[in-house]
Amino acid sequence: MSDTIFTKIIKGELPAHRVYQDDRVLAFMDINPLAEGHVLVIPKEPGASLADLSDDSAAAIGRVLPRICRAIRKATGCTDFNVLLNDGESAGQAVMHVHFHIIPRYADKGEGAGLTKSWKPTKPDSEALAELGRKIARQL
Amino acid sequence: MSDTIFTKIIKGELPAHRVYQDDRVLAFMDINPLAEGHVLVIPKEPGASLADLSDDSAAAIGRVLPRICRAIRKATGCTDFNVLLNDGESAGQAVMHVHFHIIPRYADKGEGAGLTKSWKPTKPDSEALAELGRKIARQL
Repeated sequence: MSDTIFTKIIKGELPAHRVYQDDRVLAFMDINPLAEGHVLVIPKEPGASLADLSDDSAAAIGRVLPRICRAIRKATGCTDFNVLLNDGESAGQAVMHVHFHIIPRYADKGEGAGLTKSWKPTKPDSEALAELGRKIARQL
Repeated sequence: MSDTIFTKIIKGELPAHRVYQDDRVLAFMDINPLAEGHVLVIPKEPGASLADLSDDSAAAIGRVLPRICRAIRKATGCTDFNVLLNDGESAGQAVMHVHFHIIPRYADKGEGAGLTKSWKPTKPDSEALAELGRKIARQL
């Protein structure tokens, strides 16, 4: 597996504005933020996809998200935020190491924030949805 | 704290196409999916914001995300996915109970998926970014 810029940051070979780290997790400022206080939270475990991440690394990331969100809120005064993982090229992943974006929202800036979403829900047949749900559940 | 439709689903007072549950976490099909296989992952602990969620509930959600992603991939054949939390009204939160969206992407459908994102990064001054990073780190 080849190094990404994030594995180099983990190793200290590239600089970053670090805000948090523990045995399994590192968090640092996104240098191209979509909003003030945009932070990346990554596992130290290498790998491009969350689907391949170990349970323990994934749990460690989950565990620190609330406290990092609180810290960003205290430091920036943001009201809301999006947490976003782009997993795979068609999902918008640019660096092939799992990374969660925490993107603050400022209610007074509304849709002017650097991340805008277009949400186009579908209305599937209820029985088709139930069947797909059973199919997914059988894999768990 | 008033009940939301998700607390009613947790209690079994409203139906849902459940795909996974454990002591702390419930996952079920989004009935208005942005793509085939769109699943919601929620803590059983009530509360609108991830920032207020207990470490243990947040870790439990993190822990199961990889295996739910794998199950969706096996069941649907999706290639990629986005994991998205909308936290607060200005972030697009509609139900005031923490919920992570797992939204599959199908490489061949590209931008035709129900979620499209516009990404407008900024280029802050490096020293300003460093100072903000230190400010956030001091809260952690």
